[in-house]
Amino acid sequence: MSAPAIILSHPQLGENIGAAARAMKNFGLADLRLVAPRDGWPNEKATAMAAGAADIVEAARIFETTEAALADLQLVYATTARERGFAKPVLTPAAAATRLREAHSAGHQTGILFGGERSGLDNHEVSLATAIVNIPTDSFASLNLGQAVLLLGYEWFKAADETPALRLEHGPLAKLATGEEMAHLFAHLEEELLKSGFLYPPDKTEAMMRNIRAMLTRADFTDQEVRTLRGMIVALTRGKRRALS
Amino acid sequence: MSAPAIILSHPQLGENIGAAARAMKNFGLADLRLVAPRDGWPNEKATAMAAGAADIVEAARIFETTEAALADLQLVYATTARERGFAKPVLTPAAAATRLREAHSAGHQTGILFGGERSGLDNHEVSLATAIVNIPTDSFASLNLGQAVLLLGYEWFKAADETPALRLEHGPLAKLATGEEMAHLFAHLEEELLKSGFLYPPDKTEAMMRNIRAMLTRADFTDQEVRTLRGMIVALTRGKRRALS
Repeated sequence: MSAPAIILSHPQLGENIGAAARAMKNFGLADLRLVAPRDGWPNEKATAMAAGAADIVEAARIFETTEAALADLQLVYATTARERGFAKPVLTPAAAATRLREAHSAGHQTGILFGGERSGLDNHEVSLATAIVNIPTDSFASLNLGQAVLLLGYEWFKAADETPALRLEHGPLAKLATGEEMAHLFAHLEEELLKSGFLYPPDKTEAMMRNIRAMLTRADFTDQEVRTLRGMIVALTRGKRRALS
Repeated sequence: MSAPAIILSHPQLGENIGAAARAMKNFGLADLRLVAPRDGWPNEKATAMAAGAADIVEAARIFETTEAALADLQLVYATTARERGFAKPVLTPAAAATRLREAHSAGHQTGILFGGERSGLDNHEVSLATAIVNIPTDSFASLNLGQAVLLLGYEWFKAADETPALRLEHGPLAKLATGEEMAHLFAHLEEELLKSGFLYPPDKTEAMMRNIRAMLTRADFTDQEVRTLRGMIVALTRGKRRALS
C-alpha cells in the first residue's frame, strides 16, 4: 500500500465519510484514517453512502489524535480553504499531486489531511503538515468534504494517468486514411465536380478544390469513412444520371 | 455570459441537479440547461440542495429535446463513461477545458453535455457533440452526475486560473531572507559552534558547516525567521554560559 493515506480529522456526518471513501476508490486510494469521528464508529450511514467502496469504510482506522493518525507518515499535505497567516508553502492540488508521486517514487509514506465539516483544520493541525493545499475556486467557494477528497484524489490519479489528451475513438480495425486514400478521394471528387459544372469558372477551380481539401482533411477521416464518401459520390452522380436520362 | 453551458439530459433526481448547480458556481459557470427532467420543473429538492447556488437552479432553462438545448451552441463536448464504438475524438477533461477556453477566446458559444443518472447519454445525443470527454478513473468508476459536473467545472476554472503552483504563505510584510541575512546567520552559528566544540575535529569543520547550510537553506526562511533563529542561538549560548559560570 503506497498511495497517500486520506486522514479526516473530526468528521461529523457519516454520509460525508462514505462519500469520501467512494471518491477515494475512483482514484485508487484505500488507506482511510479517521480522527475522533463525532458520531462514533462504526457508522451505518458511512457504509451505506460508500456503496461499492464499503470495503474502504470497513478498513478505516480510528485515531484519538491527529498526531497519532500521522505518526508513520513522512510527507503530509493539509487541505485548507483559507489563509492561515503563518509561513508555510501553499500548493495547488495539481502541484501537490506531482510532489506526492515524487515522494512515492522515493519510497516515502504520504497522506492528505482534511478538516471536519464545521470549521476545517485548526492551526495546530496545519502546523503538523509539510505544506498546505488550497483548491482554487471562484468567489463562491462551497466544496464539501467528499468533493474536496474527490478533487485531490482526481489530481493524484491524473498525475500518473497516461490517457492521451486526445484520441480518436474507433473500432480496433479502423485506421486513419492515408495520404494516398485521401488523394484518390479528392481526384474522384474533382472529376465528378468538373463534370457537374460545380468547379466553374475554370480559373477558380484550383482555389475551390484547395478549400474543399482543407475542409475534408480537417475531419481526420478513417479509411472506412473515405470508402463511404466515395460510395456517396458514386450514388449521387448515378442518381443524377438516372434523373437526367 | 461566455462560460460553457452545462446541459443535463434527462436528469432524474432533483438533488443531483442541485449538486450540479453548486459545483458550477464554485467554478464560475452559470448557464444550466435541463432536457426533460424526469420529475418536472421547478423541483424543490434541486433548490434545497443547491443552497447558495439556488440562483443557478432558478435561472435554469428547460428544453424538450437535446437538439433544442444545443441549438445556439457552436462547440459541445459530451461526457461519457464508456466507449461508443464510433469515430469521434475522445478528450481528457483537462484537454477539453483547454479547447473550451480557446473556443471562448475565438468568441464561440460552448457547452458540456451530461447524461441522466440511469444510463447516460444515448448514441444519438453523443453524435450531436463535437467530441467526447472521458473522466479517467481507476477500475472502480462510480462518479455521480454532480461529481462529473464538479470535475469538468474544476478543469474549466483551472485552465484560466493563475494561482502559482507553489507559494509561500506569510504576512504581507514578511519576505524571504536574503543571501546576506543567511550568511550572517551561518557566520554567527559557526562562531558559536566552534566555541562549543561541536565542529570538531578541525578537518571536518568545513564539511559539517556545508551540511548545516544545505539543511537550513532548504527551508526557505523569511527574514523574521532568521532573526528568530539568531535569537535562539544567543539564548542557548547565554544559557550555557550561565550554567557553566
